[in-house]
Amino acid sequence: MGGRCWKFWGWGFEGDGLSAEEERRLLNFYRKRIGLADVARRPPPAVEDIALRPPRLQPPASLAGICTAEPYQRLLHSYGKSFPEAARIFAHDFNNAPDIVARPRSDDEVSAVLGWAGEVNAAVIPFGGGSSVVGGVEPAVGERFAGTVSLDLRALDELLEVDRTSRAARVQSGMLGPALERALKPHGLTLRHFPQSFEFSTVGGWIATRSGGHFATLYTHIDDFVESLRTVTPAGVMESRRLPGSGAGPSPDRLMIGSEGALGVITEAWLRLQDRPTFRASAALAFDDFRQGALAVRAVAQAGLYPSNLRLVDAEECLVNGVNDGSHALLVLAFESADHPVGTWQERALEVVRDHGGRLLPDDTEAQAWRTAFIRMPYAREVQVPAGIIADTFESAITWDRFEAFHARVKGATEAAIRAATGRSGVVTCRFTHVYPDGPAPYFTFHALGRPGALLEPWRHIKQAASDALLAGGGTITHHHAVGRDHMPWYRQQRPALFGAALAAAKATLDPAGILNPGVLVPARSA
Amino acid sequence: MGGRCWKFWGWGFEGDGLSAEEERRLLNFYRKRIGLADVARRPPPAVEDIALRPPRLQPPASLAGICTAEPYQRLLHSYGKSFPEAARIFAHDFNNAPDIVARPRSDDEVSAVLGWAGEVNAAVIPFGGGSSVVGGVEPAVGERFAGTVSLDLRALDELLEVDRTSRAARVQSGMLGPALERALKPHGLTLRHFPQSFEFSTVGGWIATRSGGHFATLYTHIDDFVESLRTVTPAGVMESRRLPGSGAGPSPDRLMIGSEGALGVITEAWLRLQDRPTFRASAALAFDDFRQGALAVRAVAQAGLYPSNLRLVDAEECLVNGVNDGSHALLVLAFESADHPVGTWQERALEVVRDHGGRLLPDDTEAQAWRTAFIRMPYAREVQVPAGIIADTFESAITWDRFEAFHARVKGATEAAIRAATGRSGVVTCRFTHVYPDGPAPYFTFHALGRPGALLEPWRHIKQAASDALLAGGGTITHHHAVGRDHMPWYRQQRPALFGAALAAAKATLDPAGILNPGVLVPARSA
Repeated sequence: MGGRCWKFWGWGFEGDGLSAEEERRLLNFYRKRIGLADVARRPPPAVEDIALRPPRLQPPASLAGICTAEPYQRLLHSYGKSFPEAARIFAHDFNNAPDIVARPRSDDEVSAVLGWAGEVNAAVIPFGGGSSVVGGVEPAVGERFAGTVSLDLRALDELLEVDRTSRAARVQSGMLGPALERALKPHGLTLRHFPQSFEFSTVGGWIATRSGGHFATLYTHIDDFVESLRTVTPAGVMESRRLPGSGAGPSPDRLMIGSEGALGVITEAWLRLQDRPTFRASAALAFDDFRQGALAVRAVAQAGLYPSNLRLVDAEECLVNGVNDGSHALLVLAFESADHPVGTWQERALEVVRDHGGRLLPDDTEAQAWRTAFIRMPYAREVQVPAGIIADTFESAITWDRFEAFHARVKGATEAAIRAATGRSGVVTCRFTHVYPDGPAPYFTFHALGRPGALLEPWRHIKQAASDALLAGGGTITHHHAVGRDHMPWYRQQRPALFGAALAAAKATLDPAGILNPGVLVPARSA
Repeated sequence: MGGRCWKFWGWGFEGDGLSAEEERRLLNFYRKRIGLADVARRPPPAVEDIALRPPRLQPPASLAGICTAEPYQRLLHSYGKSFPEAARIFAHDFNNAPDIVARPRSDDEVSAVLGWAGEVNAAVIPFGGGSSVVGGVEPAVGERFAGTVSLDLRALDELLEVDRTSRAARVQSGMLGPALERALKPHGLTLRHFPQSFEFSTVGGWIATRSGGHFATLYTHIDDFVESLRTVTPAGVMESRRLPGSGAGPSPDRLMIGSEGALGVITEAWLRLQDRPTFRASAALAFDDFRQGALAVRAVAQAGLYPSNLRLVDAEECLVNGVNDGSHALLVLAFESADHPVGTWQERALEVVRDHGGRLLPDDTEAQAWRTAFIRMPYAREVQVPAGIIADTFESAITWDRFEAFHARVKGATEAAIRAATGRSGVVTCRFTHVYPDGPAPYFTFHALGRPGALLEPWRHIKQAASDALLAGGGTITHHHAVGRDHMPWYRQQRPALFGAALAAAKATLDPAGILNPGVLVPARSA
């Protein structure tokens, strides 16, 4: 499908991955910190290693040109990029591979695929970049269906229209991040939405999963960038008006934003853009104590300054990522603007941070190291899984009044679960990915020593305990990773039951046969 | 019900209204500009002037203590504050008066009223401050129901909890604006949400109608202030978690925000608050041309400065309101902060405005005059209707690229409709109430000469033409006034049909008997 080949078994392009030096540093950390012994090399699977079940579906002649049952494509569309998926990939478990991968080039072709799937009782799983870490794209739909179709939207990859005056663009949903930014650049515009998955995720995927960009405050969520949407559903096409604001009833777009492919297939969006920033200021600050850093971050978040970056990383997470020696927590504070120098903003924010015990570091080295580590992180899984390391992330949001207790509870529960599941201590770290005036979005990472080939069971134990603690502590099961299949048990506890019923009723209207991403958001009907 | 008596026939308290001087100025404008002749005084109706139909419902003994059929209460709950309602009030038309006014003091009592209404097939119309200008609270529900209950929520008026750390408060939905701000003041906090109706509207009403505050940019919509909601529906209670942010599926709150009493009765909310501002800067600027002013406003809105005020008022609207002599459009530009002096922000914004042809006025007089006029406006109707003036407002939002054509089209269509309906020219003015990076929210006011007692028919003609033009020009039928009964025909054109179907399905789940504010948002079922 053009260009370099995406790995079906890991992150990014074939041939890319951690450097030898990055790998060495990571494994050394595991040796020192959680007792990793010698690592036996396990090569990643190759296409020919996997025995796929013969496709159960045969597309009609009219769709043959956009459908394939080619093994590599079926493998690529079997999984997202979560830890348990990686574990199953290295175990050569592709039992839920889609029967067919369809690659529509227009809304009409999306409709045609949905129509055919409805006729033959096939489940359809919309697929953007496939970077889900919550089981959002795996065709694990049970026995109710005659087969599964992964609906790859990456051929819908055009920038259709640019409105420079309003700073907005009409974009097809299958555009990947870099292609979108490249297309906007000649117009002097940017979406300025940079999730960690940026290179390998799509506009439609961002909208369907309510993705968060890497900016810390104010305009960072895709939710706020959506001006209007076009969605193809089994019941027809739904298209909202381009409006800067509207008070006409509940927002139609807010029903589709976060719908995770279960209510319809987002095919186009008008997106709100920004001018490309030209003024910047950035600083790195140290805190002896993460909780003290949290107080500083709260003060900045409540000051109405709106920094572009306000990322607090605890000491151990700094250590894991080679940012510093683990002696202090790091705060990256930055402002940027396309209109005006940001010195006044930065000075005031620095004053607030110093008032709360932050020490200005002599230069930007640690901030730079953090940025590099952040971009490289998704590749680490390819080293961790073969080495028998259970490493995963989960994230939440909580109001400030409950943050300290929440942090202690979640960290404690995860550490205890690691001990119970693996028989030894692991590492649990925390950073803030986003900060609101009323609370932070804490993002946890854990590392535990398992046994290669037997990682799933202890992972499940740890995930269960961590998720239970998130909910019991008052948080959300996900701040920007989405629900997918993995978070359904906790999502069902978290959301108001009546809202769940209303959502199911909405789904029954838009997707009467229940073929769209079954089991996600709305519990699957039984066979 | 405590304190001073609310007018059932006009705005605010009995005894309040335009001063003699304000009235003289307004009538003089009408004499000069649209040919108003002598005005025959018509007194407002008194309770004893109105013959009400005997109540068709008898509440059960268990609810007798919170229900009344007292004539003043039935009259007060018959209407909101729209122009056509005022015309009918002065015509003594109270045919749709509710049979019963219920005033619950707890969620359980709200549930009990809904339960009783379901049993006897009564329609229930949630009522906050009753300031709707779109027919949102009139019990005009057709013949399908055995009677109507106006559900007055103003006894749910407590500030229940304050979280100073996260700057949030748990508030009952029946609190009026001034009571809320009074209760928050000792905590150093403010909701900083000041719709024009502030004195006579409630937290729940704001949420149910997606109200807009008077601040121009960034945090001004009630949508953004809602941290969580508690809603009582006929199917049970729905309560969301307090979360600063969450990516767990479509937002449950965003379904209820803007639900206009048709999906449930909002009884409580956690609201995001702000520190009380202490730093301020304000300036008034003049533009010869409204469209030139719009270009300046766009540049400020896209600069990332986030002024608290950025109100552009066209020359004739300045004249009507006694702000200036009608020789220029006015731009009120202001910043405020609880954290830092705002001089840098204001200087840059002034620079941008001057670069676009704005002339700084020597002092703040016009800005002050505008603010006073803004607060006094709702009282004008009590002078206009008896004088035979057809005067109303309508509002929208549109992207910048289409603004000039939209403004010309809507103004032109409204002017033409006034001529067609009244046989003479009227006045149509425009201001921006809110401004977004991708477009403004233009707010139109029209004044036309009618005949006392025969105002409804020409009003309908003008409203129809103006609303048709809003939709044809690509705008929304309402930016912050809501849909109510008056906007339903255009709302149904505007919203995606499939979203309407999904909303109807959600309503059928939450309100199976269809008793909640029938005819609003979801078309009423036939008898």
